[in-house]
Amino acid sequence: MNTEIKKIGILTCGGDCPGLNAVIRAASRTALNLGIETIGYKFGYRGLYKNDFEPLTKQRVSGIQHLGGTILYSSNKDNLFEYEVIEDGVKVKRDVSEVAVENMKKEGVDALIIIGGDGSLTSARDFARKGVKVIGVPKTIDNDLAVTDVTFGFNSAIDVARDALDRLHTTAESHHRIMILEVMGRNAGWIALHSGIAGSADVILIPEIPFDIHKIVEKINERHERGKLFSIIAVAEGAIPIDGSVTISKIVEDSPDPIRLGGVANKLAYDLEKLIPEHEVRATILGHLQRGGSPSTFDRILGTRYGVKAVELLMDKRYGNMVTLKGDVMSYEHLENIIGRNKLVDPNGELVRTARSIGITFGD
Amino acid sequence: MNTEIKKIGILTCGGDCPGLNAVIRAASRTALNLGIETIGYKFGYRGLYKNDFEPLTKQRVSGIQHLGGTILYSSNKDNLFEYEVIEDGVKVKRDVSEVAVENMKKEGVDALIIIGGDGSLTSARDFARKGVKVIGVPKTIDNDLAVTDVTFGFNSAIDVARDALDRLHTTAESHHRIMILEVMGRNAGWIALHSGIAGSADVILIPEIPFDIHKIVEKINERHERGKLFSIIAVAEGAIPIDGSVTISKIVEDSPDPIRLGGVANKLAYDLEKLIPEHEVRATILGHLQRGGSPSTFDRILGTRYGVKAVELLMDKRYGNMVTLKGDVMSYEHLENIIGRNKLVDPNGELVRTARSIGITFGD
Amino acid sequence: MNTEIKKIGILTCGGDCPGLNAVIRAASRTALNLGIETIGYKFGYRGLYKNDFEPLTKQRVSGIQHLGGTILYSSNKDNLFEYEVIEDGVKVKRDVSEVAVENMKKEGVDALIIIGGDGSLTSARDFARKGVKVIGVPKTIDNDLAVTDVTFGFNSAIDVARDALDRLHTTAESHHRIMILEVMGRNAGWIALHSGIAGSADVILIPEIPFDIHKIVEKINERHERGKLFSIIAVAEGAIPIDGSVTISKIVEDSPDPIRLGGVANKLAYDLEKLIPEHEVRATILGHLQRGGSPSTFDRILGTRYGVKAVELLMDKRYGNMVTLKGDVMSYEHLENIIGRNKLVDPNGELVRTARSIGITFGD
Amino acid sequence: MNTEIKKIGILTCGGDCPGLNAVIRAASRTALNLGIETIGYKFGYRGLYKNDFEPLTKQRVSGIQHLGGTILYSSNKDNLFEYEVIEDGVKVKRDVSEVAVENMKKEGVDALIIIGGDGSLTSARDFARKGVKVIGVPKTIDNDLAVTDVTFGFNSAIDVARDALDRLHTTAESHHRIMILEVMGRNAGWIALHSGIAGSADVILIPEIPFDIHKIVEKINERHERGKLFSIIAVAEGAIPIDGSVTISKIVEDSPDPIRLGGVANKLAYDLEKLIPEHEVRATILGHLQRGGSPSTFDRILGTRYGVKAVELLMDKRYGNMVTLKGDVMSYEHLENIIGRNKLVDPNGELVRTARSIGITFGD
Repeated sequence: MNTEIKKIGILTCGGDCPGLNAVIRAASRTALNLGIETIGYKFGYRGLYKNDFEPLTKQRVSGIQHLGGTILYSSNKDNLFEYEVIEDGVKVKRDVSEVAVENMKKEGVDALIIIGGDGSLTSARDFARKGVKVIGVPKTIDNDLAVTDVTFGFNSAIDVARDALDRLHTTAESHHRIMILEVMGRNAGWIALHSGIAGSADVILIPEIPFDIHKIVEKINERHERGKLFSIIAVAEGAIPIDGSVTISKIVEDSPDPIRLGGVANKLAYDLEKLIPEHEVRATILGHLQRGGSPSTFDRILGTRYGVKAVELLMDKRYGNMVTLKGDVMSYEHLENIIGRNKLVDPNGELVRTARSIGITFGD
Repeated sequence: MNTEIKKIGILTCGGDCPGLNAVIRAASRTALNLGIETIGYKFGYRGLYKNDFEPLTKQRVSGIQHLGGTILYSSNKDNLFEYEVIEDGVKVKRDVSEVAVENMKKEGVDALIIIGGDGSLTSARDFARKGVKVIGVPKTIDNDLAVTDVTFGFNSAIDVARDALDRLHTTAESHHRIMILEVMGRNAGWIALHSGIAGSADVILIPEIPFDIHKIVEKINERHERGKLFSIIAVAEGAIPIDGSVTISKIVEDSPDPIRLGGVANKLAYDLEKLIPEHEVRATILGHLQRGGSPSTFDRILGTRYGVKAVELLMDKRYGNMVTLKGDVMSYEHLENIIGRNKLVDPNGELVRTARSIGITFGD
Repeated sequence: MNTEIKKIGILTCGGDCPGLNAVIRAASRTALNLGIETIGYKFGYRGLYKNDFEPLTKQRVSGIQHLGGTILYSSNKDNLFEYEVIEDGVKVKRDVSEVAVENMKKEGVDALIIIGGDGSLTSARDFARKGVKVIGVPKTIDNDLAVTDVTFGFNSAIDVARDALDRLHTTAESHHRIMILEVMGRNAGWIALHSGIAGSADVILIPEIPFDIHKIVEKINERHERGKLFSIIAVAEGAIPIDGSVTISKIVEDSPDPIRLGGVANKLAYDLEKLIPEHEVRATILGHLQRGGSPSTFDRILGTRYGVKAVELLMDKRYGNMVTLKGDVMSYEHLENIIGRNKLVDPNGELVRTARSIGITFGD
Repeated sequence: MNTEIKKIGILTCGGDCPGLNAVIRAASRTALNLGIETIGYKFGYRGLYKNDFEPLTKQRVSGIQHLGGTILYSSNKDNLFEYEVIEDGVKVKRDVSEVAVENMKKEGVDALIIIGGDGSLTSARDFARKGVKVIGVPKTIDNDLAVTDVTFGFNSAIDVARDALDRLHTTAESHHRIMILEVMGRNAGWIALHSGIAGSADVILIPEIPFDIHKIVEKINERHERGKLFSIIAVAEGAIPIDGSVTISKIVEDSPDPIRLGGVANKLAYDLEKLIPEHEVRATILGHLQRGGSPSTFDRILGTRYGVKAVELLMDKRYGNMVTLKGDVMSYEHLENIIGRNKLVDPNGELVRTARSIGITFGD
């Protein structure tokens, strides 16, 4: 038993993600069952700075595991090491991290559990460097962290995207259309890849594999020849054509119907209709629907495991580490070693090969 | 028993709609159980013109009730009374309805069940005028037909829209954002109204009630003052501001980020962020997701009742009628009396009053 | 404006039902927007007797529409006109309704909205007879009330039952089995009838139509002959065989596997396996899953309309009435006229005829 | 390229499991894309024996990934090495495996992909011993195979069970009841463990940890004391009390209500109501609902990976192996090494410890 820790502060940062409340609940209950007090800072680092928090009692964290979002609220941008303040009417950036440390002392908070993405974990590392006892919990709906196999929220997101692809199938088939679904993934195509395979997409476009629109046309035509008069395309928002020739502004000028603009999906629909005018092409941008709603069974379990492990690491005095999942083993990695280590889709990896084996094209 | 009918042709027209297969299945099974042969024309009227059909045996219509779309395929635009043909290299419109009648005679098809929207039912009426034995089945996902209380597909659509609103709530609340969801409804706001009430929207914008953006701002601020730091807006695609001042093209010019353009939801997000820059506003366009997927329990039953009733009307020699639902009673109305009789949301009706009673604003 | 009402008490009685919270929320918000205070008594009539309540502020009823169950809790059995109390160590029944009336006076509660089933509405009528200003809101998941067309909760229940039937199809088909699903409905077969039609059942058994097991065997065999090697049976818990010959206790004696006992579904499975031993038969009892979970879109809207209408009736001084839905019109009926008027499935009604038309058998 | 394989036979054995069609589709498409013919034997080994098969063309395996069950049908019991045949009117067991081998030769089938559980894979091993080129694909909804980390179907099953637990919560809370859900798991408690954690159960009972009913009572009382007036219990069908004292047949004798009998859940409800008569206890047996329905996103991907890998192993001439997933790596293990190696829940493992950390009791 680690007697250094009598009170823990928890905070959630960055875009919301199904499973956050499972982490909060599991960490709080584990701590409380060990006789450790827990509080939750509101709006991530901002709450730490403003000392804005609420006690996380058993009652407070009861009945929250199945809720989407985060009961602690979140903020996307607050970096206490470069915090935007107004001085003499001018916005300037200041290091206010010492205020946070003072707040912790004032409230008797001995350690922090910080749940967040790359940027937030960088701050966590910086707090660790200042001597704060901190444990990081990775949060990225894109599942693009190198040091952990899976992050919570991802499974829920691909469920939503796959369900959307299932739905688009019925219309595509009834009307013999090309249906495009744009999903999240600016840098990493994991959501498009997973949901595309599970949603029986014919084409998957991801940032890691620049696409040639003519290869997509080939696929559509090849399907057409064997009687499949519709096609489904899953495209990550960050997917890029091999040539950057047709720009969005170009479309705006040309288009008689600017209302359909927006997103790589719309651009692709526009371009495809020019190349294969005999087909109707329709685009849907899934957007925020991917983040919301109740976490999946998988993500609730994963969030719970992350939350429990975070407290265990504190109990073991493994300060400055981030919780990870390797295979099916909960583990940890030092915050110094994780920043910027993103996990992209390997164009030659097993999952892309699997997709290609069953006939999915990546437009390359 | 009506001995005039030995073979029935069924066809589905217009945008696909959950429940079409329930109608096809119920009509086919009812007819087959009466010893009447059934065939399905493909792609709506086009199949009737090209004599492109398949037999609808018990085997063929088995296991289809739960499928979205239509196993007979559909086409949005073919009007056999003004059919687009190419003569001497020039596109011209010709009345080819007689070809359809000849095809029916050739195949021994004694009667038609035509499932479609306003345009397709107008053609059904015109075939009835030519002496063809025809029964219409109304199909509009927007539920905007005056002579029937509910059309299948609508319940499924509001389920999808309501689920999306549920999802947006979690992100809105976690980040204290204004979230806008654009749903179907060019002329009638039924989907926005129903899904908005069920999805706990704070603002509902529909074509029948032009909105004043400043009233929306008021609502957001009023909520803010009593501690509700997020708001949810459900907007029908056909909703219009009371003044038409800010046009889409204007946005394109002004916007540094044209990728977010498209749809009234995006326009509204753009305008709101100008008026209340301290709030983040995000827009989602639900689009085709509303049409797809397995029909709801309600729509399967409704489609089944419509399909059975269509055959019953044929058996009763009530040719030229359309099936209707009034209260909970299956009935019918002559095709001559239904064209163009749309059902809009009554701004003073019970449902709008109900919404206002619980604090929802319509921006007026 | 009715100035007699300054404070309203709301209570929910009987088995929980999806949509209760929509009623509570809508009634509270409507009242609060009219400047009327609202409180919620806990555990139905018991709370009224014990003066156990909580204020229903806007904050309290916010974010509850989508929740299953009731935030006010419910109790199945408390009748204040025959309340079980212990006197001199003996359980006796006493009329304690005057205590409730005194509690209302003490708290300044001018009127009650009572949401409940047959028994609870009988008490509501008795309070009305005592001069209490009361409005009833009908609650029956079985949809078996004569004076209103639809009650909230029913649509959610048939959704769950239909989803279960969809699931059973895949196993039935893969293994060529007879799958039986037992759903709610002791006296009225509405849930079995609706979910059976929507869930593509081959046989529907309801209390209103006593079944002959040999007719079920005929149906299974008829399907078998045309290549459908599985069958799906939806049975209401109150369905009864035309002869009562095989009793449950008989099964217990005979059965080598008593673990499979319980429910009409298990009895039917047992009997069918004796009659058609070449088929595997499996039974599932849906039970409590039908009551739980988030209310459907339809039920949220219906609950909201009921809640708003209840307050409108109070404002119109129509005390002693129950809210009803007739066709698509919200209306009301005096509590004196509703007790014991149940709505059973009409064996010759349109819905049963529709089911028969598409080949469903009722075992008669 | 392996030129030994020109035609592959695929078969599915044992209880159906969401994801089987994903395996069939992926294996067929991969083979067909390599120019290899594929056929599917019907009803598992029985089809191999009776030479009952259908060609698996691209058309045939199109649009099946999202379907539950198996398009090839399955049979639970046929073992060709001890096949039940009738000789001289007497049932005897014979080794008919040679007939199967002859059938393969006759049809030019060079290799088999056998998807099944422990028993079916034992037969697969025996065919391998006879020199048949065979690849096994593990199928167990219970996820209880030692040599692979996850099997498809498991994720879908825990989704259904977790959803049921979510639903039971609303009723439990509204009525202050003890709700028990019985899930699959005769020998291994994985489904109860995973769904119990994700479904916020208070008590999880699994075969690996015999339970003391008095510990459950303690937990219920402890919750009651801090104001949680309901409790949720997830119990695997194979969970056993530490003493076997109260037998099912005992209940039958005692019970005035034998209709509620059946299953460990009912027994537990019966026993708990005796011990804590002030609480209402209700049991639900999930049963076949866990197997049915569309596979989850996760299971579709997993099934696809298994299917592709099975063909890759054939191409690599790794005959006699079974596909496995280790961590996130697709691999294989020889069929000689997998039989009878079950994976039970480790009572001291990380997942049980995690559950205990957040306050879940296992009744020990």
